[in-house]
Amino acid sequence: MIASKKVISRLSKYRHTLGRLNALGFTRIFSEYLAEKVGVNPSQVRKDFSVVGIKGNKRGGYIIEEMLAQLDEILGKGEVQKVIIVGVGNLGRALLNYKGFERDKITVAASFDIDPAKQKDSGHPVPVLPLGLLDNFVKTHRIKVGILSVPEMEAQQVFEQMVASGIIGVLNFAPIQLKSTKKCHVNNVNLEMELENLFYFVNTDKMKTPSQA
Amino acid sequence: MIASKKVISRLSKYRHTLGRLNALGFTRIFSEYLAEKVGVNPSQVRKDFSVVGIKGNKRGGYIIEEMLAQLDEILGKGEVQKVIIVGVGNLGRALLNYKGFERDKITVAASFDIDPAKQKDSGHPVPVLPLGLLDNFVKTHRIKVGILSVPEMEAQQVFEQMVASGIIGVLNFAPIQLKSTKKCHVNNVNLEMELENLFYFVNTDKMKTPSQA
Repeated sequence: MIASKKVISRLSKYRHTLGRLNALGFTRIFSEYLAEKVGVNPSQVRKDFSVVGIKGNKRGGYIIEEMLAQLDEILGKGEVQKVIIVGVGNLGRALLNYKGFERDKITVAASFDIDPAKQKDSGHPVPVLPLGLLDNFVKTHRIKVGILSVPEMEAQQVFEQMVASGIIGVLNFAPIQLKSTKKCHVNNVNLEMELENLFYFVNTDKMKTPSQA
Repeated sequence: MIASKKVISRLSKYRHTLGRLNALGFTRIFSEYLAEKVGVNPSQVRKDFSVVGIKGNKRGGYIIEEMLAQLDEILGKGEVQKVIIVGVGNLGRALLNYKGFERDKITVAASFDIDPAKQKDSGHPVPVLPLGLLDNFVKTHRIKVGILSVPEMEAQQVFEQMVASGIIGVLNFAPIQLKSTKKCHVNNVNLEMELENLFYFVNTDKMKTPSQA
């Protein structure tokens, strides 16, 4: 089963919505309702599920618990996933304390920063280690995914250090295009760009439909 | 001139890269180099610029200062853009202290939170006001764009409050699909989904090309 990045993003959204409905006591769901909650067409939901081999029932809809189990398997949510945070500035510190990750069985194993003052600060939920310990930590704990939240000017260099240590997936918050000679999957979150984008549409009033993301 | 959201995102990236090159003393640039820095094809760069009416010169490339002026005009960067932050939890606090926005002439005018303890905390760069003052503040200061960083369960309700007050652009960090009866442009940043997505590709080793975002 090979799914594209976009399909996986949607599966992740379906899983999240199904998890909430399950917690509220619902047992079955129709693709129409799931589609509305996630913001896509019902046909898209059915298509996505068929791509990954999840089958529904036209009359009774999908069984939520079954779907959750199947989605967990596909998205690898059976076990806790470990991640490191590199760069404990304002954003990195917020991510260290972010509760949303735990719910998705993602745990921050450690964080790294070049600043000794941050390493000494004991007010963090996980240790802030010197950048020099990154390589050893990643190898010992078999970390595969890291969050890069260092300033723009340091991002490429620190990214290379992460990849060299064995990281193969990076969530990058620096507004630059990271380059690697080794295989590494990079997802970019560019907050300035997202805001600029909003300002453009707001200022030029080019909104076509309500609340479309 | 009407440009799509994707074109605007790329123009924003070009502007960012050109700004850095300008600061380093460069005066001209070829589309090939700009394309590499941003991570797109050179033909894409030329196409994007032609969409918004920016013309280059095959022999000499583009003149950086001219392009910056044109991009600033298109992206509305001549004047400072004001934004509010609603929800001063870990993420909201990080955004309050985020330096990246200032560079892009985006300033946080105020933040809002329902918790009186946060309102009293004077350690923030801008005031944390009670949610009840949102409507008046947005109207008085003609704020158009807001960052929504409240917990998931409160997101829809607070979003409606923002839209009712006059906000027409929202950067949403809650992992839900916001709904509005009024026109409002929503950009979603879903950190859990970005991480889940990375874990999927890392665990299934479906990386096709190095460092592709």
